[in-house]
Amino acid sequence: MGEKRQKKSSGNGDFPRNRVFEVAAEVFHRKGYDNTSMSDVAAAAGLTKAGLYHHISSKESLLYTVLDYGLDLTEAYVIKPLEDISDPLERLKTMIDLHLRLVLEERNLEVTGLLHECKTLSGSDRSRINRRKKEYVRMAAGIIAGVTEQYNVKDVNPKLAAYALLGMLNWTYQWYKVSGSNTREEIVRTFQHIFLQGILGNAWIDQQAKAATH
Amino acid sequence: MGEKRQKKSSGNGDFPRNRVFEVAAEVFHRKGYDNTSMSDVAAAAGLTKAGLYHHISSKESLLYTVLDYGLDLTEAYVIKPLEDISDPLERLKTMIDLHLRLVLEERNLEVTGLLHECKTLSGSDRSRINRRKKEYVRMAAGIIAGVTEQYNVKDVNPKLAAYALLGMLNWTYQWYKVSGSNTREEIVRTFQHIFLQGILGNAWIDQQAKAATH
Repeated sequence: MGEKRQKKSSGNGDFPRNRVFEVAAEVFHRKGYDNTSMSDVAAAAGLTKAGLYHHISSKESLLYTVLDYGLDLTEAYVIKPLEDISDPLERLKTMIDLHLRLVLEERNLEVTGLLHECKTLSGSDRSRINRRKKEYVRMAAGIIAGVTEQYNVKDVNPKLAAYALLGMLNWTYQWYKVSGSNTREEIVRTFQHIFLQGILGNAWIDQQAKAATH
Repeated sequence: MGEKRQKKSSGNGDFPRNRVFEVAAEVFHRKGYDNTSMSDVAAAAGLTKAGLYHHISSKESLLYTVLDYGLDLTEAYVIKPLEDISDPLERLKTMIDLHLRLVLEERNLEVTGLLHECKTLSGSDRSRINRRKKEYVRMAAGIIAGVTEQYNVKDVNPKLAAYALLGMLNWTYQWYKVSGSNTREEIVRTFQHIFLQGILGNAWIDQQAKAATH
């Protein structure tokens, strides 16, 4: 993400993107996106409404900044670290781990639930968010295809499996509570187990047995 | 669902709940919930705005009716048919099948994406929708627990597995297109395979091998 493109596409003047993200995500989380007004965001940011409009032209531009910054976080905390991992199975396990840890952050949960609101964006903003979402699905499908090839699994369509996995991971925004009874560790372990055993079957069971004896 | 409670809680006068659902779901699907105004819904229903307000007091009451009716459909097309199935594994396979077929209907996709908007409802409406959502999660966890007991699986937490499954099924609202390359049959089969092999491992593999030889 170049500085230039960030500045060009966010249109927030000197109000930093991460600050817009934090304030807006917190208010969306508390009140729901539809119920949030620009006045609510101004109050949360400690600005007057006129002051906020100096930085952000509309609720639509706010939504764009929040979604685009959320995708920046995914790039930095999930996609980049995966580039250093060469073993396909290790890469998939790590992807599940990093993706879950990112979305289970309180402020990110609500942003995940906003992903489909990108249909309310217009023109180039909408295309850009959709393109970034599709790139992520393609990356996930590629990682899964690497694993099914490694273990010679023929009966799993990597694209459909990617959608199944992203559903498991992202739907957490509907039910996860930081104060709830399940730790992040437990959720990561359970989801890795269900998905990897789900696509690999015997190969996963053998792999676990081997890991246990080493 | 008694007639009395429906009438009391929907507050739609003589504008039938299924008609409100169909019109509103279609408009939400086309424009997104946040972008939809009462004027848009009136136009889609062939009513004047005043005519619509005669039946529905607010966008909030519209949201309530849509969510509550969506849960009625789930009760009729998923929960009820499952009551006649006694074998735990057959019940879980059928639940995945029926739930997917219901949510992959074009009008229901957008409603699934609205589930988390129930935080914008107030008081008893919000409690009622939340209660019905929780009952469904509890039912799914119960069905999964029946299967893990039957096959003596100890390492899967049925509640977390239920969240994983509902994520796979409901996240379809983000990506599924009726005109897309994957048939419903293919999605149902793939998701049944990933989830059942994911929780059962060898027991599922043996069961499939047995089924193939009969």
